[in-house]
Amino acid sequence: MKHIIAVIVLALVAALLSAAAMAQLSTDDQIKFRQSGYTFMSWNMGRIKAQVVDGDVPYDPGQVQAAADVIAAIANSGMSALYGPGTDEGTGWKPTRLKSEFFDELDKVGEIAGRFIEEANGLQEVAATEDKDAIARQFNNLARACGSCHDNYRASE
Amino acid sequence: MKHIIAVIVLALVAALLSAAAMAQLSTDDQIKFRQSGYTFMSWNMGRIKAQVVDGDVPYDPGQVQAAADVIAAIANSGMSALYGPGTDEGTGWKPTRLKSEFFDELDKVGEIAGRFIEEANGLQEVAATEDKDAIARQFNNLARACGSCHDNYRASE
Repeated sequence: MKHIIAVIVLALVAALLSAAAMAQLSTDDQIKFRQSGYTFMSWNMGRIKAQVVDGDVPYDPGQVQAAADVIAAIANSGMSALYGPGTDEGTGWKPTRLKSEFFDELDKVGEIAGRFIEEANGLQEVAATEDKDAIARQFNNLARACGSCHDNYRASE
Repeated sequence: MKHIIAVIVLALVAALLSAAAMAQLSTDDQIKFRQSGYTFMSWNMGRIKAQVVDGDVPYDPGQVQAAADVIAAIANSGMSALYGPGTDEGTGWKPTRLKSEFFDELDKVGEIAGRFIEEANGLQEVAATEDKDAIARQFNNLARACGSCHDNYRASE
């Protein structure tokens, strides 16, 4: 009886370990996914900038809203799961530029991330007003939040 | 007077051409941005699959909703702008796998894209019900919509 229980317990532990392993992305995959998220955001930031900040492209409220929706959804997606220990070294689409200071200053990182999410949500909301000046101001607030992470934790290219 | 008008017209034309040039992404950038969008979607599809289809990871309704929000936002972002003529050849993060048939069958592409957007919106809605079985069914509907584009227009690796 004890033997059967031990076998069952071992099987359960094995199943849990295997589930954890399947849920765990490799370092390079974490880096590739986060590079993809930021790159796709940058396309959408660029579209909003061209339409409401620089005015290079005629303002299309539907496109700006769609772009702001993407940025907010990515900001709220829980990307911290892609910053596992050791992911300051590795190669996704290209070698990561994450500085190792990131892992020594998680409180500060959390504050910056919180600000980024707040500003992204703000941009999504203000996009609905179709008030170009207000959208441009909020775009700049968000860009500053992005920049404060880049300045602190992203190595220059 | 005629001379002044001609100069103004020329300046306007130059400004418009320059705006168009700035709005126009290079072939490789279009490919890189769309590869990024699909790769980031695949992270989110994987999270939903692990939690509601395979059950490898405990179901977290907030995470599944966030993942479904990302997928819907990317699906609705107007990615057709990233499929300019000639983008069946070129290199973003890696060489594109887009088949040239894509550009010969734009009606069929439009139908598949419409279906994809519809199923992505459906997944976003059903995620809010927290009904795991319904989410799993809708996940499969969306996966089929993705697959029908892959089967037709993506070269195998």
